[in-house]
Amino acid sequence: MTREQLIQQIREKRSFLCVGLDTDLNKIPKHLLATEDPIFEFNKAIIDATKDYCVAYKPNLAFYECHGPKGWESLKKTLDYIPSNLFTIADAKRGDIGNTSKYYADTFFEYLNADSVTVAPYMGEDSVTPFFEHANRWVILLALTSNKGALDFQFTVDRENVELYKKVLKKSQEWGTPENLMYVVGATRAEGIGEVRKLVPDHFFLVPGVGAQGGSLEDVANFGWNDDCGLLVNSSRGIIYASQEEDFAEKAGLAAKQLQAEMERILAEKHF
Amino acid sequence: MTREQLIQQIREKRSFLCVGLDTDLNKIPKHLLATEDPIFEFNKAIIDATKDYCVAYKPNLAFYECHGPKGWESLKKTLDYIPSNLFTIADAKRGDIGNTSKYYADTFFEYLNADSVTVAPYMGEDSVTPFFEHANRWVILLALTSNKGALDFQFTVDRENVELYKKVLKKSQEWGTPENLMYVVGATRAEGIGEVRKLVPDHFFLVPGVGAQGGSLEDVANFGWNDDCGLLVNSSRGIIYASQEEDFAEKAGLAAKQLQAEMERILAEKHF
Repeated sequence: MTREQLIQQIREKRSFLCVGLDTDLNKIPKHLLATEDPIFEFNKAIIDATKDYCVAYKPNLAFYECHGPKGWESLKKTLDYIPSNLFTIADAKRGDIGNTSKYYADTFFEYLNADSVTVAPYMGEDSVTPFFEHANRWVILLALTSNKGALDFQFTVDRENVELYKKVLKKSQEWGTPENLMYVVGATRAEGIGEVRKLVPDHFFLVPGVGAQGGSLEDVANFGWNDDCGLLVNSSRGIIYASQEEDFAEKAGLAAKQLQAEMERILAEKHF
Repeated sequence: MTREQLIQQIREKRSFLCVGLDTDLNKIPKHLLATEDPIFEFNKAIIDATKDYCVAYKPNLAFYECHGPKGWESLKKTLDYIPSNLFTIADAKRGDIGNTSKYYADTFFEYLNADSVTVAPYMGEDSVTPFFEHANRWVILLALTSNKGALDFQFTVDRENVELYKKVLKKSQEWGTPENLMYVVGATRAEGIGEVRKLVPDHFFLVPGVGAQGGSLEDVANFGWNDDCGLLVNSSRGIIYASQEEDFAEKAGLAAKQLQAEMERILAEKHF
């Protein structure tokens, strides 16, 4: 998907919501466990119920890999089921030396046909750039994450007084463009998003941590906004586990609709 | 596998060699492509030919994932085939927020039954510690990698004059012990290994980059040695693609035997 198509989706749906498909057999409704592929059945129902309120889906690979080949089949079926006008994010946090990252790129962009993949920056340029060889596909690079461990290394200040996450942002803008590179920017520190926006005026941010992890949508929009919206805000547990009963899909739809309504109000305020 | 068992293997085999199973359908002998599972057939022959000369095997996940569920089956069969006295490394470079890393740990330690997994440090403590909940399993944390991109962030010097890779080494020693934590320390800068050994006297290092990537085994042993050997030196392409003809397994065995002989000489010099 191109940047232009993504922005068009945001305009049409009045939403910049990404639904995180962190599908866990221990948390999905019990009646689905009797089906042949419970993970796919759950995802299918969630997608049907939420697709009008979001512009992106983000399955996290950990929840699929732990079931071996069967989990990969559920993941592939899920990605195939998502309508093509929705942006797909393989949340895999990969990254390896150049000739190996090339195979990860093949996995996510060719085999799974996802629009984007999350990538960890620790190994530097040659671990990231092989992903750019695929046209209209995206790297979403970890910059500022929303977990407690983010404090361990990401805020390390160098001798030029620059935090590591800012160095990642600066350096990586030499590798990709706003047409093929986004950043993960956690919402647990909304001011942090503002700092990042100053350094990165044009790129989209994928913002986890709204809802269950404590971030506020209002703050994210105020600090992270750019002229093209520039935000994909993810919610996983708050939507997909809104109910763990037979009405799970209906309740997920309502939770997504509620976030979409908040986003619609924000987009109107921003005259977008 | 425990640390003690690993050290015992090194003593008995007179080797600290790890064979990297970066098995690529474009590089394996053509006659294998007609078999039902060419990747597993190749690995099986390589393992049979090299298992007397090495103490560990390291499949890199990228080479398996790019084939989808079938690749995961080849990987699982390969790990099941490796004799249990050899240490197995799932080279996956994973790392995610705490409750997600837990699922990665399940994948590698329960489903695949590997002894260890490589983990990227960028997201900090809670991305690493869930792996320690599995007894006698190991995290191999990326510290100093052997690729060009290592220069982008790993050598960033903070205000206390500490490079990022050294900060990773220092901080992570609070999370794991020499019984469950090793480090990836690239061989392309042998002096770098010496620096790391000063900071980390007891932990094992997994050293890539000897051979095809240009590092010298002699230097690695001189700079990285500790009282328990403390080294697993990986070779992938130099062994598994020693020949791309029908004699590939025989040639791989010879290449592994040659490295083992060098290691035997080093171990004798060190009176180990």
